[in-house]
This record gives sequence, structure tokens and C-alpha cells, in this order.
Amino acid sequence: MKHIFTLLALILVCSLASAQQALWGGARIVSPQINPDYSVTFRLAAPNAKKVQVTGDFLPTQTIKSDSGEYEAPGVAELRNEEGVWEFTSTPLAPELYSYSFIVDGLTIRDPANVHQIRDVASVTNVFIITKKKGDCGDLYSVNDVPHGSVTRVWYDSPTLGFARRMTVYTPPGYDNGKDKYPVLYLLHGAGGDEEAWIALGRTAQILDNLIASGEAKPMIVVMTNGNASQEAAPGEGSSGMTVPSMMNGAKNGNVLGEGAFEQSFKDVIEYVDSHFRTIRKKSSRAICGLSMGGYHSLHISHYYPDTFDYVGLFSAAIMPNPKSESPVYKDFEKQLEKQFRAKPKLYWIAIGNRDFLYKANVEYRNLLDSKDYPYEYFENEGGHIWRNWRIYLSKFAVRLF
Amino acid sequence: MKHIFTLLALILVCSLASAQQALWGGARIVSPQINPDYSVTFRLAAPNAKKVQVTGDFLPTQTIKSDSGEYEAPGVAELRNEEGVWEFTSTPLAPELYSYSFIVDGLTIRDPANVHQIRDVASVTNVFIITKKKGDCGDLYSVNDVPHGSVTRVWYDSPTLGFARRMTVYTPPGYDNGKDKYPVLYLLHGAGGDEEAWIALGRTAQILDNLIASGEAKPMIVVMTNGNASQEAAPGEGSSGMTVPSMMNGAKNGNVLGEGAFEQSFKDVIEYVDSHFRTIRKKSSRAICGLSMGGYHSLHISHYYPDTFDYVGLFSAAIMPNPKSESPVYKDFEKQLEKQFRAKPKLYWIAIGNRDFLYKANVEYRNLLDSKDYPYEYFENEGGHIWRNWRIYLSKFAVRLF
Repeated sequence: MKHIFTLLALILVCSLASAQQALWGGARIVSPQINPDYSVTFRLAAPNAKKVQVTGDFLPTQTIKSDSGEYEAPGVAELRNEEGVWEFTSTPLAPELYSYSFIVDGLTIRDPANVHQIRDVASVTNVFIITKKKGDCGDLYSVNDVPHGSVTRVWYDSPTLGFARRMTVYTPPGYDNGKDKYPVLYLLHGAGGDEEAWIALGRTAQILDNLIASGEAKPMIVVMTNGNASQEAAPGEGSSGMTVPSMMNGAKNGNVLGEGAFEQSFKDVIEYVDSHFRTIRKKSSRAICGLSMGGYHSLHISHYYPDTFDYVGLFSAAIMPNPKSESPVYKDFEKQLEKQFRAKPKLYWIAIGNRDFLYKANVEYRNLLDSKDYPYEYFENEGGHIWRNWRIYLSKFAVRLF
Repeated sequence: MKHIFTLLALILVCSLASAQQALWGGARIVSPQINPDYSVTFRLAAPNAKKVQVTGDFLPTQTIKSDSGEYEAPGVAELRNEEGVWEFTSTPLAPELYSYSFIVDGLTIRDPANVHQIRDVASVTNVFIITKKKGDCGDLYSVNDVPHGSVTRVWYDSPTLGFARRMTVYTPPGYDNGKDKYPVLYLLHGAGGDEEAWIALGRTAQILDNLIASGEAKPMIVVMTNGNASQEAAPGEGSSGMTVPSMMNGAKNGNVLGEGAFEQSFKDVIEYVDSHFRTIRKKSSRAICGLSMGGYHSLHISHYYPDTFDYVGLFSAAIMPNPKSESPVYKDFEKQLEKQFRAKPKLYWIAIGNRDFLYKANVEYRNLLDSKDYPYEYFENEGGHIWRNWRIYLSKFAVRLF
């Protein structure tokens, strides 16, 4: 019987445009191939190509000089042509979730042999995970044989913004058929991102499943919002259709509140979550954190609602004082901050990489906190403004909560 | 303030490998571009390419002859080179969700300007939707400004198979904060597919949201299982890691039950759904349908559990009598079928395209039903064994339910 379904699947596959990368039969290209020494072999069948390269964060970074200064970009390696199949093998790699693309005669493409992809803003790259042993970060980002939480895409009404919006919610194992109430972590994305960013690039469900299974993190609900106040939902998921991702796409009613709109609408998020999920509705059971723009949002939401969050995490936060703003969110910033710290949050956690372009702004912000004797904890590691760091920060922050 | 976040996003984008397709600035390639007459322009920047083609189901199909016979494949059109940017404009298109790929010097690639993609088995293609007016099929497959249900990925325990498995569940608008109980449609994928197929290629959430909003369909829960009995979850979503999709990947314990394993384990699915969701637990509030292998599964599950489903839908069903099988699922097939029809299901619905390779098998099955005077309804339309038809069948079946 099984062979009949295999035939069925084969017919389906053969009728697709990319039948050359067919699932069964023929000399199928395997790429990427993780070797026993944790080097990785990349392969691409491109008999007509003149030059094939691979680029990705598994290669040493290169420094690009441009008019607006220097920045780091993923390295590039050349593949060798072996009778039409191009091939490159990396050095042995450390545990991590890596992303890569091929460049064929100057054109950046996905690996047709690898269906595993992640969208970051408007770019899609292939991904793979290196895991060496239980508990390493590759293992932490993998689906393991542990109880799994559920991940739900829900639409909530935002009376403040005037339209319905989409969010992604992780509920821990046992939530679905239990009666317990749970604490909530609000987890915010960066500029250009949306409600899909943390679940895809951030591996939130895997990190939480694994940390809860090992007993390192408490079972919690994680709410991943869309922080672009004029946007309903991620690209293709809202009523503006399949447009190109941008911060301004999917605009509904424009940004009616102007500056601070998302922060002001955050009460709608909390109200929805507290009324639709079994939450513990108190400050000691609420955390908020975010990366880059989401760090900025976390900073301001946590003082704008000073009795709401006992745990605040700023990951590579965009620290941008805005003293001239008339928005109630940014007005009297230092007074609001004083009020927040007077209420003694249990953890105010700042994390950044030592090559992050926001490093200096974070030093200045810590100087401000120091000058006021506001207690916070600080974590600094290698690297820049990258997801690799944000996954680490989530892992480190989650185990400190509740 | 907004420009600061734009800068932040720009820095993020520039640090990606595919910065050439950057979100802002420069002469960004727009592709696909839907023109006022509903023709579509495809563009690709590939200055070094010699030949660029586009292939997809928006083009007339071509007939491919192979050793195993003739089959239909999507057509191919050539793009014209305009100073390094290749371009092709289609004829005006009818409303539909279309998929396409580029072929650059023989290499099939995704459109780097379009992040909207769908995976079908082991192939990823770009997609776009043509909608002309409210109520056409493009509109039915689009996210509209109507109340939205929630879509949840959950793991259920399957004692029959001996491991936990992933499924996708649609709950209708109002479910999350109401107390009502709902009927359930079990919606099964074809060979090579998994629990992601109907939600991605099938546009189930959009079809249900829109049909419920218009009053054409009753609010219902839709359960999309993984029909590969040895598989935990879709590629990359299970503990076998980021392997190549195949029917045999992600195998846990092998297929312990042999033939009919998925059908036998279906009681675990129903039990989970009835104990974790607010369902109406009776025959008149349960429907089952599926495409191809999922039609085969629906056929057999519905007679194997004869008092369970009042609505049965066979979409391009793989009708494969298996009289010699010792599996309790297939044994005494005609007796079981007699029992099922004696209990008078409210709707037994068979649908197939007139060029489907399973057309003849379906004629034979209808002849069997006719010979026994078992009542069923039949719907036939144009075309073959394709998602375009299965979305139509879901739309037509859903409005007949409950």
C-alpha cells in the first residue's frame, strides 16, 4: 500500500515546476549536509553557472565600507564546480542556528535542496542548526522530545488604534487541558519585524519548551505582538494583501496617535491577554522585553504603565531620549522612570553585544541609571546587532522570570 | 522618531546577505506587479544571466511526455532583458491564488523580490493572489476585513502510535472568549503533505473566516492532522530536525501498526479534540474530508468509525480497494461500507476534476455506490490533481456542513 502513496506523492512532485529537485529518485542533491566533524557541505546543481558562492553567518564576517561608515556583513566563500554540481565545505562549526544563501553569477538565491527558510524583514534565507550535545544552544533552539507548548495566531481588537491586530501567543505544555493560571512574558520585535519574528528567528517556542522541560524556566505564556502601530499583521497575513514588507505597509487609518502609539495601545494587548488566557493578573507575574526597537518599546511601556511589569529586559535596545516629544509616553521621561524604580521592579535587565552600533547609547543610558542609583543588571557579550545574540538574551532572561 | 526606526531597519537589512534586494532606497525591483487589467509583470535583476524564464500555474499548462506516460506541467515563458532587469508580463488573469518560480540559465529559483512563498511537499514556490471583486475565489482566499478565527499548532498524544504528534487547529471568531460549543471538520492532506498543507496551500483560515463572515458557512472548528503515521510533525517542526521532507522522515518507532495505522490512530485525534476544545460531541456535528491520500483516509476512517461522522468529503480521492489486507481498517470493506450507509450519513460528497489521474478510479467507486443504492452527491469540474481544485472543493463542502 505504501508504494501507492509514494507514487501519488511522486506524481505531485513531478507536476511541480521544480521537479529537478524531486523528492525521490535520481541523484538528489543533499544540501546542507552536516558532517561528523560538524563541518557543513553546501551543494548546488547549476551546470550553466560561471561562479557560485555561499554567504552566511557561519563564515567569518567581513567589514564593508560605505559612505555612511563601516559595517559588518556575513562572509562569502566560493563553491567548486564538480561536473555541474558546485560544492563547498565549511570548517567545523560551533552549535548555533545559522542562515545562508547562494550567490550564482551575482544573483542571491535560496538553496533549492533546503526547504528550511526564515524570513527576516524582507529577506528570506535558508537555515540549519548545529547541535553537538544536550544543552548547547543548537539543542536549545531545536525541537526535542519534550512536552511542547501550543503556538496560536490570534486577532485582538485594539480600540486605541481603531482596528484588529494579529499576535502570536505561546502557551506552555499543560495549558490546554489544565486550569492553572500562568505568568506572562510580553516579547517585542525590532524595526522591520512583526508578530512572526520571535517565533521564527527567535525560536521562542523551542527555547521555552526546552527551558521549561529542564526546569530552568517556569511555565509561562509568551505574547509576541506586532509593534508597528499602523500595521494589522505580518506581510501577507493582513487585509492589505501580499505586499512587500515595510514598516508602512498594511497601514490602517494611518498612525492616528503619532509618536508613542504602540506604547499607548499596549493596554489593549494586556486587556485582551488577561481576558482570553488564564493569566495571573498582577505585576509580579508580568514581564516585558524586546530587541532593538522592541527594547525601546519595553523601556517606555514599562514606565508608562509603572505598576504593571516586575521584569523588564532591554536587548540591544534602541535608547533614544525624546525630551521634546509631546506624547504622554515620552513626556517627563525622567519623572516616569523615577516612579517606575520607586515601585522596585524585581529585575531590570540590560543586554548588548560589544560590537553593537547601539553600544554607546546603552552606556549612556546605564550612566543615567547609575547616577540615580536605580538598580539594574547588565549582560555584555561578543558581537553586534544580530539574532544570534537576541536568542541568547531571551534564554538568559526567561530563566530569571517569575 | 519614525526615521530613527527606519534607519534601524535599514541597518538590519544592509547587514543581510541579500542586501541587494533591500527594503528601502535604490531602484527596488517590484515583482510580481499586478496591473490594472489583472495582467502580472514579473521582474528579476540578473545582469549576468543568459536566459531567464518564469514558470507557474498562471500560464497555460504544457504536456510532458515521459517513460511513465504523459502528464501536465505548468507552462514556461521567457523574460526579456532590459539593461540587466528581466521582465515578462502575463495576459490578464482570472481570480486565483497562483504560484510561480523563475528559471535562470536552467536553475529554478524563487523571486527574491517576493517574500510570499508556500512549501508544497519538498518544493517552495512564490505565490500571489488575483482578486477582482468581493466574493470571487481570489477574495475568498484573501485576508479580508472580517472577524478572524485563531490558528493553533498543538501537540496531541497518540497512545495508538506511541508518540506525540502535531496538528493545526482553526477555531472560529468568537471561540476564544465565548462558551459555545462547535461542530468539527477534520480536514486531511494528501501524500507528501503534512499538518501545514491545508493552512498554507489550502488557505483554510481565509476560506473559513470569509464563509463564516458572509453567513454561508456555520462557525466550526477545523482540525488539520498529519496523516503520515510514522511522522511526528511537518519538516523542521519535529524532533528529527531540519531534514528533507519525505513521507518516511521523522519516523518514530517505525509504523508500528502497518497498514491502516493512521486510520486506527484517528480515535486519539478525536479524543484529544473533544477533550481540549469546546466541541459538540455527536455524529451530526462531525465532518471528515481530505484530498488524494486524505480522501482515501476519509473514506476509510468514516466507515471504520461508522457512528462518528455525518458528513464525508472525498476530494480527488485515492480510491484503492485493498481486499487482501488483514488490517481491521480495510478488512470486510463492503460490509463496513454497508454499515456506514445503513446509519444514513447526512452528506457523502465526492468531487474530482475531469483530468485527474484518479478520475477512472472514482468512476469505479461511484459505480460501486450506485450498485448498492448508497446515496452520495457528486461534483465534477475542470482540471487535474491540483490545489486549485481542492480549495474549490473545501469551499463547496464547508457551506454544506452542520
